[in-house]
Amino acid sequence: MKPSDLGHNLLLGENVTVGSGVAFGANVVVHDDTVIGDGCFIQDNVVLGKAPSLSPTSTAKRGELSPLVLGAGSVVCTGAVVYRGAQLGPGCIVGDLASVRERCTLGQRVVIGRGTCVENDTRIGAFTRIQSNAYITAYMEIEDHVFIAPAVQTTNDNFMGRTEKRHALERGATIRRGARIGGGALLLPRVEIGEEAFVAAGSIVTRDVPARTLVMGSPARVVRDVPDEELLENQ
Amino acid sequence: MKPSDLGHNLLLGENVTVGSGVAFGANVVVHDDTVIGDGCFIQDNVVLGKAPSLSPTSTAKRGELSPLVLGAGSVVCTGAVVYRGAQLGPGCIVGDLASVRERCTLGQRVVIGRGTCVENDTRIGAFTRIQSNAYITAYMEIEDHVFIAPAVQTTNDNFMGRTEKRHALERGATIRRGARIGGGALLLPRVEIGEEAFVAAGSIVTRDVPARTLVMGSPARVVRDVPDEELLENQ
Amino acid sequence: MKPSDLGHNLLLGENVTVGSGVAFGANVVVHDDTVIGDGCFIQDNVVLGKAPSLSPTSTAKRGELSPLVLGAGSVVCTGAVVYRGAQLGPGCIVGDLASVRERCTLGQRVVIGRGTCVENDTRIGAFTRIQSNAYITAYMEIEDHVFIAPAVQTTNDNFMGRTEKRHALERGATIRRGARIGGGALLLPRVEIGEEAFVAAGSIVTRDVPARTLVMGSPARVVRDVPDEELLENQ
Repeated sequence: MKPSDLGHNLLLGENVTVGSGVAFGANVVVHDDTVIGDGCFIQDNVVLGKAPSLSPTSTAKRGELSPLVLGAGSVVCTGAVVYRGAQLGPGCIVGDLASVRERCTLGQRVVIGRGTCVENDTRIGAFTRIQSNAYITAYMEIEDHVFIAPAVQTTNDNFMGRTEKRHALERGATIRRGARIGGGALLLPRVEIGEEAFVAAGSIVTRDVPARTLVMGSPARVVRDVPDEELLENQ
Repeated sequence: MKPSDLGHNLLLGENVTVGSGVAFGANVVVHDDTVIGDGCFIQDNVVLGKAPSLSPTSTAKRGELSPLVLGAGSVVCTGAVVYRGAQLGPGCIVGDLASVRERCTLGQRVVIGRGTCVENDTRIGAFTRIQSNAYITAYMEIEDHVFIAPAVQTTNDNFMGRTEKRHALERGATIRRGARIGGGALLLPRVEIGEEAFVAAGSIVTRDVPARTLVMGSPARVVRDVPDEELLENQ
Repeated sequence: MKPSDLGHNLLLGENVTVGSGVAFGANVVVHDDTVIGDGCFIQDNVVLGKAPSLSPTSTAKRGELSPLVLGAGSVVCTGAVVYRGAQLGPGCIVGDLASVRERCTLGQRVVIGRGTCVENDTRIGAFTRIQSNAYITAYMEIEDHVFIAPAVQTTNDNFMGRTEKRHALERGATIRRGARIGGGALLLPRVEIGEEAFVAAGSIVTRDVPARTLVMGSPARVVRDVPDEELLENQ
């Protein structure tokens, strides 16, 4: 790690690539091998390319990680932490104090809200927006144009750390294209939220949600269809 | 931005005003035009006066922002981020790792808890206390002497990013004087919580709550009146 | 506070003790009297040994605090804040952007997840794991081998800041050995979660949970016993 004149108290690891027109806030730390695309904006106190410190009981995969790659024009906001092994497409925004962990892949123009955590090995499709203070667990698949409201919570392990068989079953929700998840909703492990489905705020989703339906309650049940005027094709 | 001897690794933007008796922790970044009142305490790693980085799809208003103003004797705790365009009255506390966004106004002696996010354009009255890890959405109005418990969640858009008509309807809850919102409760868009009302922990509030009533459940329903001994006038 | 060559932009307070083989990330701030055990790893932007800034209305105890002590081999991750007066056993992990407050005691190999807040005066037993974005309130007692899933919320004051009698009653939940609390669950003040009990995700726990039972719903009710294969003795 060496100080760099590209920013105030900027520290760059070995073999870091900085594109043209990148702007750095103060006190940024960029760990080894990170690739920062052209025109990115890395704000105050951001840490990029951090290697995970796994606990002995963590179920995250171990082994070599590829470098963190930030697509052109991405913005990583104040105090956010983006791990080695993540790949962000162009034009992404990672909000203040948010985290994106190892082996996550984000398509173009994904927004990760303020304070939100995206755990390891989750894929997020293009144009998906995750708002503030959400928790996106490990091993989720989130497709394009999904909307996740503030404080949505997700889980991936029904056994909460017990039994050997849990390892084969550990997986978060799958959220199909254009689905919307309401504020404070909770998604149980391995549920599938269908295309353009709508999960009402505060729902607890314990089983799959059919495409284009609106579900509500605890456990969430289908209440009606999503109105045509709210479908992606009509925006 | 220029280094300053007023604190360790302190960086001050152009035209920053620092009152008398202000104490700075380490690694503080103060952006342009910020006004820090007398006797404020700005702790380690705080960022003040940050300009927002809005996503192309954000519904936050754009345009010129007035400088951040911190009232006398306010404390901004470790790692917190307070935006340009916010105005804090005297004696406020912004907790560790909390955020207060542009065009928020806080009256005197407001407490924003650790990790809590107050989004743009929300007004918070004097002596209101918001505890840790709450999410206060944009366009809320919170009056004086309100108590918001930990992990309270709020929302402001029933359409979750679809339709044009949503723009006219986007507004968070209104919380009247002396109301109390219990831990983990969820407030839906545009509900009004009456004066001195009490929302029980974990409730989901889908419609207005009458003054001085206690509501509970999902959806929250009136259960009884708030006891006289708990009213503000009897403290 | 004086700069130290042990890390990049490292700041050490008076009378700090640094064990052998301690590794520091960048921009770490260590306040007075902190004791860092052998082989600890203190990552970028961490603040150790911070003294609390209590609001005038806070119910946290005041007075002299003993120094922060970090047990050997502990890891404090990026941007975390650990207060003066806390004591961590050997091999603990405090996740990114997490907080541990004054007078908390953590046994050996406790894990505090990313973004999680542990408020003042809470005790956590050995091998307990608290996952990301949980909120652990003040005055809780959590025994050994407990598992707390992401986004679990807890409360300790049914009066939310009103009446004098609340002071005698303010206490968070007690969680007995080996219990597991599911994602997004909410624990009301002073409930006791029995040994090896299982609280399903999203439950609201309003009364005590018997040992080795599984509870679910709002309010949480006993549904069945925890299967033998999930008990600690069978792992």
